[in-house]
Amino acid sequence: MLFRAQGAPLRWYTAVMAKHSTITVKLGDRSYPIIIGSGLLDGAFDLTRFMRGSDCLIVSNETVAPLYLDRLRANLGDKTIHSIELPDGEAHKSIASLQTILDRLAESGAGRDTTVIALGGGVVGDIAGFAAACYMRGVAFIQVPTTLLAQVDSSVGGKTGVNHPEGKNLIGAFHQPRAVLIDTSTLSSLPDRELKAGLAEVIKHGAICDIEFFAWLEENMQKLLRKEPLALAHAVQRSCEIKAEVVADDEREAGRRAILNFGHTFGHAIERCEGYGEWLHGEAVAAGMVMAAELSGIIDADIDRLRALIAQAGLPVSPPSIDADSWMRAMGMDKKVEQDQLRFVLLHALGDAHVTSSYDNELLRQIVGADAR
Amino acid sequence: MLFRAQGAPLRWYTAVMAKHSTITVKLGDRSYPIIIGSGLLDGAFDLTRFMRGSDCLIVSNETVAPLYLDRLRANLGDKTIHSIELPDGEAHKSIASLQTILDRLAESGAGRDTTVIALGGGVVGDIAGFAAACYMRGVAFIQVPTTLLAQVDSSVGGKTGVNHPEGKNLIGAFHQPRAVLIDTSTLSSLPDRELKAGLAEVIKHGAICDIEFFAWLEENMQKLLRKEPLALAHAVQRSCEIKAEVVADDEREAGRRAILNFGHTFGHAIERCEGYGEWLHGEAVAAGMVMAAELSGIIDADIDRLRALIAQAGLPVSPPSIDADSWMRAMGMDKKVEQDQLRFVLLHALGDAHVTSSYDNELLRQIVGADAR
Repeated sequence: MLFRAQGAPLRWYTAVMAKHSTITVKLGDRSYPIIIGSGLLDGAFDLTRFMRGSDCLIVSNETVAPLYLDRLRANLGDKTIHSIELPDGEAHKSIASLQTILDRLAESGAGRDTTVIALGGGVVGDIAGFAAACYMRGVAFIQVPTTLLAQVDSSVGGKTGVNHPEGKNLIGAFHQPRAVLIDTSTLSSLPDRELKAGLAEVIKHGAICDIEFFAWLEENMQKLLRKEPLALAHAVQRSCEIKAEVVADDEREAGRRAILNFGHTFGHAIERCEGYGEWLHGEAVAAGMVMAAELSGIIDADIDRLRALIAQAGLPVSPPSIDADSWMRAMGMDKKVEQDQLRFVLLHALGDAHVTSSYDNELLRQIVGADAR
Repeated sequence: MLFRAQGAPLRWYTAVMAKHSTITVKLGDRSYPIIIGSGLLDGAFDLTRFMRGSDCLIVSNETVAPLYLDRLRANLGDKTIHSIELPDGEAHKSIASLQTILDRLAESGAGRDTTVIALGGGVVGDIAGFAAACYMRGVAFIQVPTTLLAQVDSSVGGKTGVNHPEGKNLIGAFHQPRAVLIDTSTLSSLPDRELKAGLAEVIKHGAICDIEFFAWLEENMQKLLRKEPLALAHAVQRSCEIKAEVVADDEREAGRRAILNFGHTFGHAIERCEGYGEWLHGEAVAAGMVMAAELSGIIDADIDRLRALIAQAGLPVSPPSIDADSWMRAMGMDKKVEQDQLRFVLLHALGDAHVTSSYDNELLRQIVGADAR
């Protein structure tokens, strides 16, 4: 593991951070690398090897572009670079934003060999990826995630899409990137609230399938909150390894991949009821994970450990006030519905998740407060 | 081949038409049947075997729905049936129509196991298929084409999409149907102009890879124009066989599948310059095929045969008046552009097409009238 040795000289530290590591998402002829390192965005990694044609469109937002757009250009050699800046925030993860990108591609005369590059967080990555999936029925796509949430979760696995007033990510496509370039130094500019939101997905990876990683997080959460580079690098690396492994196993979410949605059925309902963007995705998932753990019927000690780690990360451990009918309606629209039967990701124990439509209905009613009315 | 025997009694004829034949599009675990027969829409074929959940959305248009929507219901057992009618015409093959369908799916609470059924021509099939591809990142899709164009071409192969002001089918996805149900009796209600437009794609199939079928068309064109059922059945069957074979070979159009675009580079430019819908797609392709044959540099006898068959079908053999600059600009936006080099589907000889970026530039200029200015 990549702990920073106590008292190690800065020179050693810099040398370690300048290196990068690569994780491969194994999907046959659509396999791709996740390249992780600090400072990669300053030209330390040549992205043109993943591009076919001579031009690209960088999709970013008004917050990220001023910070990193010029730096990203250093990784693109002599390619013709177009760029577009979306407004910031989940509220803009819409068909309207999608159309803005598609219009730009069409108006610039982009061909089948163009490349769409997402520079930003999960919202930018999801919209840009969906645009790449739709334009001419699919063009090349590269993810350059700059938030913790995007680095540990949304940039890997090929899920792209936009929200619909009736449901989050209701419109989208599976479209794998050609590469994911993670420069962990971008996390230095990340607001604390977004850092914490990203930690929710990091905690999720431990909770669903790696109890050792979960224990490491319990030990190192304060370092992560202080943005200590080596701790962040390890959290990103281990999260990407877990996600890459699960995705390689079940790309289209026919089965096991759904465990990555731990906490998300409740979480999406929170986001929907509160209005997208009021609660950050990670905050909603954090509270949702506690609810899912409670519904799992596992031992209290495991639920307490999960709740404590989420609290240590400065994330909410309980949902906002939502009436029971709204809960059920909001969850009924969740994508995990099949044959009108709700499916949940529950825990056999901390570190061991599974997907099931067998759960205690009475307990579910208690958890969403149906008995309190 | 399914020629009607001279003087065969009507009883024999009816018996032949009540049967159906099946062609399989071989795409591994996404293989699917094309079921062809007369009268299938009256419950003669159970479509529910291709549906997973309990509900479906039939997408049709204001012209086709009054004729066939109620009949289609007979094929859907006790499924919950929603339906939506789009305005008729290529002008409505837009992101706005797509959004109408997606809104309807979301508002009806459709889940991952829903099925989208396209009932109509190529426009309905392309939009509905794209909606099925996008909704929850892909739900089941069934094609029930009711125009000749859709039956012989657009319903098979998984290309879905909508137009963009900058280019036809610029936004879309590959999304294979679960089944294609072709009731050839629906052609009886097809306006002559649309029948002829469909014949353009039938002729194309002969011209690109089956000179025997081309010769059969030369012999039987008048029967097709009179809508003789057995002649139409054979034309549909042979066209689907050819398309199924080419698509199975190259689903994503990495290579050979592009031969199906014979006449389409010029044709799309005509549609774009004249405004989508002014020239029907098949009419534009007809004129485009003559232009592509001319650019091929094949013997005059072959060009003459192609021109004569297209004329016999009542289709245009030359393009409308478009200035050379508009031609080149319109073709520059065509999806077949790679590295700024135009690619054309040309003929080695009638019945033998190939994709190439090697062509006589001077001849191209002559064909689009650049030397006439």
